[in-house]
Amino acid sequence: MSKTIVRQLLDSVKAQGRTSLTAPEGKQVCDAYGIAVPKEGLAGSAAEAAKMAAAMGFPVVMKIVSPDILHKTEAGGVIVGVASAQDASKAYETILKNAKAYKADAKVVGVQVQQMLKGGQEVIVGAVTDPSFGKLVAFGLGGVLVEVLKDITFRLAPATRADALSMLDGIQAAEMLKGVRGSDPVHREALAKLIVGVSQLVSDFPEISEMDLNPVFASKDSAIAADVRIVVDFAQKPARYRPPEAEVVKSMNRIMNPRSVAVIGASDEPGKIGNSVMKNLINGGYKGAIIPIHPKSAEIMGFKAYKSVKDVAGEIDVAVFAIPAKLVAGALTECGEKKIAGAVLIPSGFAETGQHAMQDELVAIGRKYNIRLMGPNIYGFYYTPANLCATFCTAYDVKGSAALSSQSGGIGMAIIGFSRSAKMGVSAIVGLGNKSDIDEDDLLLFFEQDPNTKVIAQHCEDLKDGRAFAEVAKRVSKKKPVIMLKAGRTSAGAKAASSHTGALAGNDKIYEDVLRQSGVIRARSLRDLLDFARGIPVLPTPKGENIVIITGAGGSGVLLSDACVDNGLKLMPMPADLDAAFRKFIPPFGAAGNPVDITGGEPPLTYKNTVLLGLSDERIHALILGYWHTIVTPPMVFAKIMVEARDEMRAKGIEKPMVASLAGDVQVEEAAQYLYEHGIPAYAYSTEIPVAVLAAKYQWARGAGLL
Amino acid sequence: MSKTIVRQLLDSVKAQGRTSLTAPEGKQVCDAYGIAVPKEGLAGSAAEAAKMAAAMGFPVVMKIVSPDILHKTEAGGVIVGVASAQDASKAYETILKNAKAYKADAKVVGVQVQQMLKGGQEVIVGAVTDPSFGKLVAFGLGGVLVEVLKDITFRLAPATRADALSMLDGIQAAEMLKGVRGSDPVHREALAKLIVGVSQLVSDFPEISEMDLNPVFASKDSAIAADVRIVVDFAQKPARYRPPEAEVVKSMNRIMNPRSVAVIGASDEPGKIGNSVMKNLINGGYKGAIIPIHPKSAEIMGFKAYKSVKDVAGEIDVAVFAIPAKLVAGALTECGEKKIAGAVLIPSGFAETGQHAMQDELVAIGRKYNIRLMGPNIYGFYYTPANLCATFCTAYDVKGSAALSSQSGGIGMAIIGFSRSAKMGVSAIVGLGNKSDIDEDDLLLFFEQDPNTKVIAQHCEDLKDGRAFAEVAKRVSKKKPVIMLKAGRTSAGAKAASSHTGALAGNDKIYEDVLRQSGVIRARSLRDLLDFARGIPVLPTPKGENIVIITGAGGSGVLLSDACVDNGLKLMPMPADLDAAFRKFIPPFGAAGNPVDITGGEPPLTYKNTVLLGLSDERIHALILGYWHTIVTPPMVFAKIMVEARDEMRAKGIEKPMVASLAGDVQVEEAAQYLYEHGIPAYAYSTEIPVAVLAAKYQWARGAGLL
Repeated sequence: MSKTIVRQLLDSVKAQGRTSLTAPEGKQVCDAYGIAVPKEGLAGSAAEAAKMAAAMGFPVVMKIVSPDILHKTEAGGVIVGVASAQDASKAYETILKNAKAYKADAKVVGVQVQQMLKGGQEVIVGAVTDPSFGKLVAFGLGGVLVEVLKDITFRLAPATRADALSMLDGIQAAEMLKGVRGSDPVHREALAKLIVGVSQLVSDFPEISEMDLNPVFASKDSAIAADVRIVVDFAQKPARYRPPEAEVVKSMNRIMNPRSVAVIGASDEPGKIGNSVMKNLINGGYKGAIIPIHPKSAEIMGFKAYKSVKDVAGEIDVAVFAIPAKLVAGALTECGEKKIAGAVLIPSGFAETGQHAMQDELVAIGRKYNIRLMGPNIYGFYYTPANLCATFCTAYDVKGSAALSSQSGGIGMAIIGFSRSAKMGVSAIVGLGNKSDIDEDDLLLFFEQDPNTKVIAQHCEDLKDGRAFAEVAKRVSKKKPVIMLKAGRTSAGAKAASSHTGALAGNDKIYEDVLRQSGVIRARSLRDLLDFARGIPVLPTPKGENIVIITGAGGSGVLLSDACVDNGLKLMPMPADLDAAFRKFIPPFGAAGNPVDITGGEPPLTYKNTVLLGLSDERIHALILGYWHTIVTPPMVFAKIMVEARDEMRAKGIEKPMVASLAGDVQVEEAAQYLYEHGIPAYAYSTEIPVAVLAAKYQWARGAGLL
Repeated sequence: MSKTIVRQLLDSVKAQGRTSLTAPEGKQVCDAYGIAVPKEGLAGSAAEAAKMAAAMGFPVVMKIVSPDILHKTEAGGVIVGVASAQDASKAYETILKNAKAYKADAKVVGVQVQQMLKGGQEVIVGAVTDPSFGKLVAFGLGGVLVEVLKDITFRLAPATRADALSMLDGIQAAEMLKGVRGSDPVHREALAKLIVGVSQLVSDFPEISEMDLNPVFASKDSAIAADVRIVVDFAQKPARYRPPEAEVVKSMNRIMNPRSVAVIGASDEPGKIGNSVMKNLINGGYKGAIIPIHPKSAEIMGFKAYKSVKDVAGEIDVAVFAIPAKLVAGALTECGEKKIAGAVLIPSGFAETGQHAMQDELVAIGRKYNIRLMGPNIYGFYYTPANLCATFCTAYDVKGSAALSSQSGGIGMAIIGFSRSAKMGVSAIVGLGNKSDIDEDDLLLFFEQDPNTKVIAQHCEDLKDGRAFAEVAKRVSKKKPVIMLKAGRTSAGAKAASSHTGALAGNDKIYEDVLRQSGVIRARSLRDLLDFARGIPVLPTPKGENIVIITGAGGSGVLLSDACVDNGLKLMPMPADLDAAFRKFIPPFGAAGNPVDITGGEPPLTYKNTVLLGLSDERIHALILGYWHTIVTPPMVFAKIMVEARDEMRAKGIEKPMVASLAGDVQVEEAAQYLYEHGIPAYAYSTEIPVAVLAAKYQWARGAGLL
């Protein structure tokens, strides 16, 4: 019903070739979607005006309605601040008298009576269309200062009531809505209803490209839009093609875990990419069939070679391309005819160098034959459960549960180096490059169902289809943590991004808000991405927000506390009985409370006793350890006793996340590595990184509804 | 003259036992210091009122002045918005008529005519007294939203005109003062004059403990305080004792670079602190006299031992204490009598455990004998130019130019471990602990004149005398970079600080602003402190703000650009001729502009040519390098060629700061270390840290007036 009204209205706007709606049309649309606007009516008599005004509540504004009077104020046809029924009646007469005096023959339709809005908090609700994320609803306070501070928040449309309420808390100046200095708090539900209404409207009618309710008067009783602006665009951009999810998963499984791999452009000649790929497949220990494709050679590196994939008898799952750009389309068509599931397009020289048509041709071939494309312009990929190194980089073999991907090759190499150096176990490292086809959400769909992957960490410079990513990420992130390093955050970064990959860099605030809405943990730096990917799968999931710091170094305790606040973690106020219990283990001059400062000169047993207490008390949900290197408790002694304590409690069925900050001489590096390998993320010379890693785990647990 | 007026006024307030000033007194004080308040006058006739109002400018407000009429408004004795001379005359008559009607026998003194303020931007100027920093002047916008956002900035009082102007730019909402959406910009000089006036006033009269001008109406023509509130406190806290600077330097030189060191509580028994100290002195290679003090032994570790320092024939510069707390005072008195310059008080058990009286006793002895105290509750200190390890920790021997200090022992150990691990050359590491006497500014005074020190990095939880620190740091930071990690930044951190050291944690925003005002680089984390201390002395000082990124990995280029913006660095817009010059060296599909993306597959020569161009072009002032590990240009080849390029340009007298981000397999770690050791701070797997290090150097250079 309400949709029908809007449909008809928009059809008429389209027929008239207009790009925006008039104010009365805006009101009609708002009415249809329950978006509150000022009450108004047309009075034909003084008595009717008085009755109408009384029903709306005072004050009202009254205006002459006449096709012959354009300048209403000039004609004395507007009276504001009408405060009573009697005044309304009088105002009606005055307006009519003034109108006659202004233009004796004016045709008077009547007098418009409209609710006057004032007081409360002025806010803005709007909607925009983002090229990657599609429809977004926006919320912020009104006024110039807010504009200067750019304090606005976005959610994907349609937004739920919970989304809308989270927006009210999602601006910097959120406190303003709660009533400050004796002012009333706003009516949160009314405001949320208005936000939801706007978000539903633009979702139902994609031709509404922009919408602005500015200002909205939010008071303790209501939230009413005083002004409505709606812009339409009937030329809709076609959505990026998305195969059905089941099909994506099927193809991705053949690609990531293939029974056979063809190397197109395989070579015996060291230094050639086709040679590096062959070496990596062989040295990586891949157990499936390796099938070199070469125009002349009959055998390459001991494997029988073929002129074309079409000459191969059995099924081929994946073809890795190591040939010049201009030859790719032809070979890809043959792969399509051979019903290969995926093409790993290492070659560069496509969109990233301005050759858009060449890349479009590959996409068309891929769609025609239902072959998925990874790249072009990539290093390839690793999938360690299959011992598969389908890449021209070095072979990688530290197996584990983190799946990483990068849009850029350089970042991919940094992932490999860090992973090897930190002994971070990895299930996959995937290069996405130009993302002509396979992108972040395809990977999410595969890793979602991949039993070898526990955490997914992605570097990107843009999302080709942010809407698809957000929808998939919202579901996947409830099961497995999803971390993203979005490069091009800043305007300079975004400029570099657009010159690098031709990516249309989105407004960073939109990425920020949508990633949070989708439960994605946002890494602020490359090291964060890597540290989170390493630490999150190691940590058990916390069961509550209460964190306690136990430290041998008081100074570390202060810095760890700072880091907790910086990262949104909550230091538990120490209950008196627990305080007393901790005090039993520490010297009289040590400080209990939180941090628990056991003091520097203590033996291993003090660390162990206090940590056992922290693990066993049900009110505590996570521990942050601060270690101070002394002769009494050397680094490896500390590390081993911590793992012992953890194991003792685990045997009793108790597991809580623990991280550690190690202050000491170089021996603490070995101790940190030992702790990490035994499930306690630990860092030497840093108080901030271990806390950030714990906070990332917390952020995930909260987003996944586990807390 | 103006001081005399305020002096008399405050004396009278004191005599009356009041703690605040009345509004007329506030106006008098403001007038005396050129702080603009609304013009006002007392008119005795209608003609006088008209003339007075005309001189002030309209509108004005007019008020009856009569000791017999308390409720002026009720009596019809107030008329606001008087807009012309004629109206002023009429208003005078009306007010008198109303007054007579209200109270026929009222004694009328006259009618007050006062300038009415409105429009412009409402701001707040104030002054507070901080226990550590003393008098501070504050500035912010007026209004509730600003209060919610806590957008306020501080400077030490008295503030210069430049300080005051920097405050206008120092708030988040600074743009509001420049005129937004067609509003006028504020009169910056008028506002600065008002800020300077307030800061001078509270500096001249320390008994003014708080001052609030709220609101101040700042328009394009003026800045006028509409309301003045002044609070006084005549009970002044005595300032912390500060010896004359020359004396500090003299004592500190004897302490840091002693000819002889006594170890009070020296021991042969391994595990004892007195044994560790002896070992470190010996193994550290200290060449001066080592004098063990022990109640019984005649010889300790091969050195002749004495019962008391007083038994030693020659002069002693330093005594390191390794005895229980309760014995310290006695031994310290003997040190005083022996005219020892400094006591290194390793023992704990003083203020940090609540034993304030015991610590006060030490301070009194120190003052009496003019012996400076380091600690108590410290690990001691290292001064590598003298091969001196006056500490119970491990010996440290990597000589260099960074002087570090820490309030906490744990952080000190982290400094030692990091320094050794990163091969960071160090001139000194000093533990300050309870800071009963020697504190951060004493160290600054020593390091200022120490030829072995090029950069000073300090960790602290509080500043015992923030005013003294700021004054010294302001001078020293112009010569040598001063970095500070202020722990207890957040409220939770501050709480931990107060339970840890009994430190009164200051408002972090005050630290933030005063450190900046003093030219101090603030580290946000322990790793930042360490990385800045390591990197800053390595980098040459930049001669301008223009930065160019040269990268083999486009993806790193984007992240490096993000990091530049995050750190306030300026990417130079690439001039057309320079763009063309870079393009000559890179493949046609590479991107010039800034970042210069040379693309990943390039040989070493491309890196070298582009870097040589970047170093030689005068418009470029610093380079950020992004390396991508490939077979064509392996990590160490890249590292060596970069050092070559740097050396070639250095031979021509050209030096510019360069930092590097290395993306690649583990071999990049060795390359990063090589680059660092050769003057190019480089980091593996991080795009953000090298940029942060360069930014810290820039921050220093700007603060020191070198840019």
